[in-house]
Amino acid sequence: MLNGPNLNLLGTREPDVYGRATLSDIEALCRDAAAGLDVDIVFEQTNHEGVLVDLIQRAGREASAIVINPAAYTHTSIALLDALKGVDVPAVEVHLSQPAAREPFRAASYAALAAAGSIAGFGAMGYALAVEAAARLARARLAERKKGS
Amino acid sequence: MLNGPNLNLLGTREPDVYGRATLSDIEALCRDAAAGLDVDIVFEQTNHEGVLVDLIQRAGREASAIVINPAAYTHTSIALLDALKGVDVPAVEVHLSQPAAREPFRAASYAALAAAGSIAGFGAMGYALAVEAAARLARARLAERKKGS
Amino acid sequence: MLNGPNLNLLGTREPDVYGRATLSDIEALCRDAAAGLDVDIVFEQTNHEGVLVDLIQRAGREASAIVINPAAYTHTSIALLDALKGVDVPAVEVHLSQPAAREPFRAASYAALAAAGSIAGFGAMGYALAVEAAARLARARLAERKKGS
Amino acid sequence: MLNGPNLNLLGTREPDVYGRATLSDIEALCRDAAAGLDVDIVFEQTNHEGVLVDLIQRAGREASAIVINPAAYTHTSIALLDALKGVDVPAVEVHLSQPAAREPFRAASYAALAAAGSIAGFGAMGYALAVEAAARLARARLAERKKGS
Amino acid sequence: MLNGPNLNLLGTREPDVYGRATLSDIEALCRDAAAGLDVDIVFEQTNHEGVLVDLIQRAGREASAIVINPAAYTHTSIALLDALKGVDVPAVEVHLSQPAAREPFRAASYAALAAAGSIAGFGAMGYALAVEAAARLARARLAERKKGS
Amino acid sequence: MLNGPNLNLLGTREPDVYGRATLSDIEALCRDAAAGLDVDIVFEQTNHEGVLVDLIQRAGREASAIVINPAAYTHTSIALLDALKGVDVPAVEVHLSQPAAREPFRAASYAALAAAGSIAGFGAMGYALAVEAAARLARARLAERKKGS
Amino acid sequence: MLNGPNLNLLGTREPDVYGRATLSDIEALCRDAAAGLDVDIVFEQTNHEGVLVDLIQRAGREASAIVINPAAYTHTSIALLDALKGVDVPAVEVHLSQPAAREPFRAASYAALAAAGSIAGFGAMGYALAVEAAARLARARLAERKKGS
Amino acid sequence: MLNGPNLNLLGTREPDVYGRATLSDIEALCRDAAAGLDVDIVFEQTNHEGVLVDLIQRAGREASAIVINPAAYTHTSIALLDALKGVDVPAVEVHLSQPAAREPFRAASYAALAAAGSIAGFGAMGYALAVEAAARLARARLAERKKGS
Amino acid sequence: MLNGPNLNLLGTREPDVYGRATLSDIEALCRDAAAGLDVDIVFEQTNHEGVLVDLIQRAGREASAIVINPAAYTHTSIALLDALKGVDVPAVEVHLSQPAAREPFRAASYAALAAAGSIAGFGAMGYALAVEAAARLARARLAERKKGS
Amino acid sequence: MLNGPNLNLLGTREPDVYGRATLSDIEALCRDAAAGLDVDIVFEQTNHEGVLVDLIQRAGREASAIVINPAAYTHTSIALLDALKGVDVPAVEVHLSQPAAREPFRAASYAALAAAGSIAGFGAMGYALAVEAAARLARARLAERKKGS
Amino acid sequence: MLNGPNLNLLGTREPDVYGRATLSDIEALCRDAAAGLDVDIVFEQTNHEGVLVDLIQRAGREASAIVINPAAYTHTSIALLDALKGVDVPAVEVHLSQPAAREPFRAASYAALAAAGSIAGFGAMGYALAVEAAARLARARLAERKKGS
Amino acid sequence: MLNGPNLNLLGTREPDVYGRATLSDIEALCRDAAAGLDVDIVFEQTNHEGVLVDLIQRAGREASAIVINPAAYTHTSIALLDALKGVDVPAVEVHLSQPAAREPFRAASYAALAAAGSIAGFGAMGYALAVEAAARLARARLAERKKGS
Repeated sequence: MLNGPNLNLLGTREPDVYGRATLSDIEALCRDAAAGLDVDIVFEQTNHEGVLVDLIQRAGREASAIVINPAAYTHTSIALLDALKGVDVPAVEVHLSQPAAREPFRAASYAALAAAGSIAGFGAMGYALAVEAAARLARARLAERKKGS
Repeated sequence: MLNGPNLNLLGTREPDVYGRATLSDIEALCRDAAAGLDVDIVFEQTNHEGVLVDLIQRAGREASAIVINPAAYTHTSIALLDALKGVDVPAVEVHLSQPAAREPFRAASYAALAAAGSIAGFGAMGYALAVEAAARLARARLAERKKGS
Repeated sequence: MLNGPNLNLLGTREPDVYGRATLSDIEALCRDAAAGLDVDIVFEQTNHEGVLVDLIQRAGREASAIVINPAAYTHTSIALLDALKGVDVPAVEVHLSQPAAREPFRAASYAALAAAGSIAGFGAMGYALAVEAAARLARARLAERKKGS
Repeated sequence: MLNGPNLNLLGTREPDVYGRATLSDIEALCRDAAAGLDVDIVFEQTNHEGVLVDLIQRAGREASAIVINPAAYTHTSIALLDALKGVDVPAVEVHLSQPAAREPFRAASYAALAAAGSIAGFGAMGYALAVEAAARLARARLAERKKGS
Repeated sequence: MLNGPNLNLLGTREPDVYGRATLSDIEALCRDAAAGLDVDIVFEQTNHEGVLVDLIQRAGREASAIVINPAAYTHTSIALLDALKGVDVPAVEVHLSQPAAREPFRAASYAALAAAGSIAGFGAMGYALAVEAAARLARARLAERKKGS
Repeated sequence: MLNGPNLNLLGTREPDVYGRATLSDIEALCRDAAAGLDVDIVFEQTNHEGVLVDLIQRAGREASAIVINPAAYTHTSIALLDALKGVDVPAVEVHLSQPAAREPFRAASYAALAAAGSIAGFGAMGYALAVEAAARLARARLAERKKGS
Repeated sequence: MLNGPNLNLLGTREPDVYGRATLSDIEALCRDAAAGLDVDIVFEQTNHEGVLVDLIQRAGREASAIVINPAAYTHTSIALLDALKGVDVPAVEVHLSQPAAREPFRAASYAALAAAGSIAGFGAMGYALAVEAAARLARARLAERKKGS
Repeated sequence: MLNGPNLNLLGTREPDVYGRATLSDIEALCRDAAAGLDVDIVFEQTNHEGVLVDLIQRAGREASAIVINPAAYTHTSIALLDALKGVDVPAVEVHLSQPAAREPFRAASYAALAAAGSIAGFGAMGYALAVEAAARLARARLAERKKGS
Repeated sequence: MLNGPNLNLLGTREPDVYGRATLSDIEALCRDAAAGLDVDIVFEQTNHEGVLVDLIQRAGREASAIVINPAAYTHTSIALLDALKGVDVPAVEVHLSQPAAREPFRAASYAALAAAGSIAGFGAMGYALAVEAAARLARARLAERKKGS
Repeated sequence: MLNGPNLNLLGTREPDVYGRATLSDIEALCRDAAAGLDVDIVFEQTNHEGVLVDLIQRAGREASAIVINPAAYTHTSIALLDALKGVDVPAVEVHLSQPAAREPFRAASYAALAAAGSIAGFGAMGYALAVEAAARLARARLAERKKGS
Repeated sequence: MLNGPNLNLLGTREPDVYGRATLSDIEALCRDAAAGLDVDIVFEQTNHEGVLVDLIQRAGREASAIVINPAAYTHTSIALLDALKGVDVPAVEVHLSQPAAREPFRAASYAALAAAGSIAGFGAMGYALAVEAAARLARARLAERKKGS
Repeated sequence: MLNGPNLNLLGTREPDVYGRATLSDIEALCRDAAAGLDVDIVFEQTNHEGVLVDLIQRAGREASAIVINPAAYTHTSIALLDALKGVDVPAVEVHLSQPAAREPFRAASYAALAAAGSIAGFGAMGYALAVEAAARLARARLAERKKGS
């Protein structure tokens, strides 16, 4: 689970937009959801676009699915798009708020062009849905591969 | 659960884009998900924008949450947006495909401006997630109201 | 008098934007204004674009003027524009709010391209002004025709 | 043969743009052309976008080709585009006038993105050409299928 | 009542667009309407944007409502918008023609962003409607203030 | 019958887009259609915009109708538009493919602004329809002139 | 001859763009040209848009042609456009520099939409050409009127 | 003097826009103007963009000034712009009509980016002004060079 | 120090945006700042674009620096831009609010294209900074000139 | 005081645009200004967007005001905008050059949407003004808080 | 090797942009490069778009690779694009200058949409690189075909 | 030689677009090319925009030419543009694919605005061409400097 810039400020940063849950709260919520689904999660946050690219590439080698909230880089980073396209695991894009209903410069998402699916606007709950979606996608992928072999 | 134009063709219509599940398959999948969550669902499909507006208004009076896939009307119908804004129940927007990765005229969503949250790109599985999200939103709303009274 | 989608929700729907008068209140207000001007009015509301087109065509055969609040269809319906152009009675466009001061997608009005005149932003009072304007336009049209015969 | 909004006004509506032939005249002209080609035609007109979608779907089940003049919905209806894409019969788009030479909002055609071909600007004569084109496309399709079986 | 640039040419200037009534005719019509409503009006015309700003400010101190036809400055003057926002009396925007149906550079109105309401396309009659609307708005404002005190 | 740049490559050039018929095949098809209609045709192809302008001007003096596939010049040549406007014979624009469904720079057609009508997307068959349409337009023009004399 | 804002600075203001001739030099040059053509000229300069509108209206009553360099107001003043349209004398637009080759915001000219003709880029010499053009237009107008009477 | 595509049709082509003078009339008018100024002119017309480029290059070697009406190529030909920039003689752009007041695709002029000055909207008279302007520019250039030597 | 339209309303006009300081308060604040820097200031306010142009030109002759808040004319007046470019004293642009964070039509500043520097968003305090900046720029200019002589 | 990418090259990098002062010169200048105002400053430069986000967050915890020159990231980094919004200390945006007068892609500033105020175009002197502004903002904030407690 | 309009002027035409090498110099340079690679080259220049299309088609029949500098036609000629797509030999696009860093109308290249690769900004040296690239592409193509046979 | 984000994935990442060569293969190919030209190369890859800026600055101090494939940062990084402008060594931009023929958001290149030249679309071969071009540019620069001293 990859979290982009400023998400470490959650809880204090613009609570009208992002809610009052901190990133630790969200991590706990995700770990709960993951536990219920019997999956392991690695939870990261970084303010650096390049580190996100590095992490996506590592996930491409070590994980069976990616959940990513690219935050501000959603709208500006073709590098993230290329990284997501360049790895062979399904990715779920998640946003706390509904970017479509905010400033025009948040309307477009590069990440959505490479993600298997997107979840936006549900606040912290969206993370739980994203964990569930990622788990199902990973299982479906695994099933396909087995069938293929 | 409201389904917009041409979703009755699912399964035969452009399966590369929309998958091979029929709308009946999706209805069954939703009823399963709903049963697991102990909620009732009403499942409708129509090709008429005006009927969707009528249905949203009815849902505003009779339901505690809306799941809507407005299909083509997502991108052209301000009337749906106004209807969703005009009712006092939370709405979850769901799409089978990822509109952001298709033609430019599918990039903007009026419905997203009024929906509590959006789920896109997960195919039929997105409906199950949407049912879950709607159920949680309805419960949260109920809880708030109780607290308020 | 033709009213477009979601206007049946008036009074409860976004009262900050549209005021607290219900559509029945507005109908009463219009009937009062009409009575003072010695004219009859037919008052309709529908959520369906096609029904609005049907009603405009009927008004073209049976009425001597049209007052129309196309609501959301103002900004998306070329069909309404063509219907208004296709009938030979003057039309008055009326809006409760001032669309020019709202979202960008409410900036353009197809209906205005065919209406004799437009009245916007005065809330329910705008309907009374519209009735008066329509009555005067109908009388002027009648006078012209008499002169022509 | 499907006719969109306001085409029932033909003959009286803006004759400078659309000519003086009524829709009945055009129906007769089409039936003549069809008789000469030994094909049956069903001729419909509606002001409702949703009804057009229904009719396209029905034609997808019952007809071997579609001729459609979507009128105003040409430029605004993604639902029609999706319907035409969702059925497995060839469609011919026909317009009385040349939309490219009119207002800018008539420049783009969603229907053209799914139609086998388009005919515009020839007035009523265009319908006869469209019948002929549709008949040829239907026959070619039939021939292909036979060859395939 | 404030009239913008070139309105002093009315009657001779492009009568197809603006009608044959002169500005004196319109002033007379407004005084009649005002007399019937028992209100006083001050009637001004100027070709100078700055003078319009001065007049709006004066109206803000001395009048209980503003009727303004900013003519060409409608589309170019943010200064008028700021002036209308800066004074505490309701303003009614009026136009003889329907700007929305003319050249694209007349499509947007800065004045509309600050006006209580707008009336366009009714020719000289629109001024009478505007006087009526302004009188009602002034009275409503007065009533509110009394209630407040 | 005027054919623009690269149409001499037909049959080998991008057969997915343009089909497998060569320009000679199309010429034969047109001559057949013309024979059935008892009209003579002159069939030309050139890669030069200026030669197309020359040919249109010559057709204006020597032919009673023009069928033109301007190919790439459709979208870039105002000179062709001016030539078509400058001659007094009806023109039919024809395209093998549906330009509206291809790259954005093929969306606009200057030729359509001056053509009596346009036919697009039917492949080689469109030429036969165009010959028929041109023959009818020429006859109608002739009939009008006789009536006028 | 009407000169817009900042033209009184000529000679010192950005000589690379506007040349080294002062407005007095240009006035002398115009008077010479006018003397040679046996016409009288009134030469005005103002920095005020409203004064330019006043002057155009006065010229409409007292002069037989207008030469105008609206300077910066060329690109921003719809009021000047309306004034030029509102008077019944031919107007010649003149610019010292070539606006089309400067900043994008100088690309469009409202004045050109109402001027009989435009002359740009010739520096001070353009004024002499403009005087000549205006004199010819005035004479042609006079001749037409005589013929008409 | 170089004339672009379709100008050979002058007199018959859209006389409302271009006037009734033929290109021969204009040539005569130019020769008169040239005679009065004691200059020789070469007068050419072509429908071919490439020929115009050739002619500009030749004029760069053999003439002391260029007058050019690029007609439709004004708005589409960067090749003309580059040719005009590539030669070392002043060029005067002339248009019979006012392109700024016509279709949007005639708004921009590539030629204007390289011309010493532009004259538009004066009909045939504009050619006489252009000859005069070109003669003056050629003389000034000559004078400069003498001074430089 | 030049102040544009509606700044005389400061203190009462939209205090959320512009603060509660009146223009007199700001003048006092500037005089204090100026006194501390040992410079004289002339303080003007006008609602007229033309008067601002006149004042800039006067400042070009009589002052050693300009501080200007063009208010609404910031975004619409090319005439101010040309005036600032046409005078040979440094100008400091100052805004009370941050235009970049307001309506889109306040995003661009013509004045900034000619100003030595810009200060925005600091409320009344920005004026004091601007006085300081202008004093430094004037001194630097003086020093340069001395060095040059 | 935070400095963005390439500012470490100051003095050698494009001196026509950025002046000849090095970043050390500017640091010294800021320390002087700070000393005069009795405030401490931390001075940082980085080429990394993510490091700037980290630094803004640290400043949010440890400083009472931020001065930031985001350089190239001004125009591309929504992450910086979100960081500035996410911390509770006032920020002053400073630029050496006037971005509004440079390439179009430097026209918009994300940082300005979150900064308390902006200073641009004054070269190194702008930093001194920014230090002063930041100091005043910090003091005002402190005063407010004391008053609040 | 195909050279587009005005390249015959090289050496004298805007040497700041295009360098001082003449087209003959470049031809010699290319022949040297070709000799070193043991390939033959045909070197052509034309100012005519249609001739370039003819030459590309001929190269499609007679050459094993194309090097083309379409000059101004790069940005305006869809006909060149279609010609390059229509032939079955690899094409290398070469430009002396860097179009991306010049006027906006030189930003897009139609030729690049069909070229195997593009080389821009290296002046005459770019031609040598292009010859080398074309030779390698031709050899690779040959090798592929051999492998395929 | 600097390689931007995700280029370390080459060979596995979207081989249809980028080919099957790995970055090591390309490094080997470049070292071969460099050996043939008797130059040393430093070969770097990073996913971090800031690191690329650092590397460009280091190359400005330590190398005589830069070859850079900025990958996704080509289209989004003004910081790279500023870095390339800020160093005094020639840069060659290289791309494996042809960005102009891909998604619209890859159409513009900031790097191209500062690069001496660009090479795109040739796959791995483009790197060899780029090494050659960089070597020549470095030599030419050296030769110039010697001549200058």
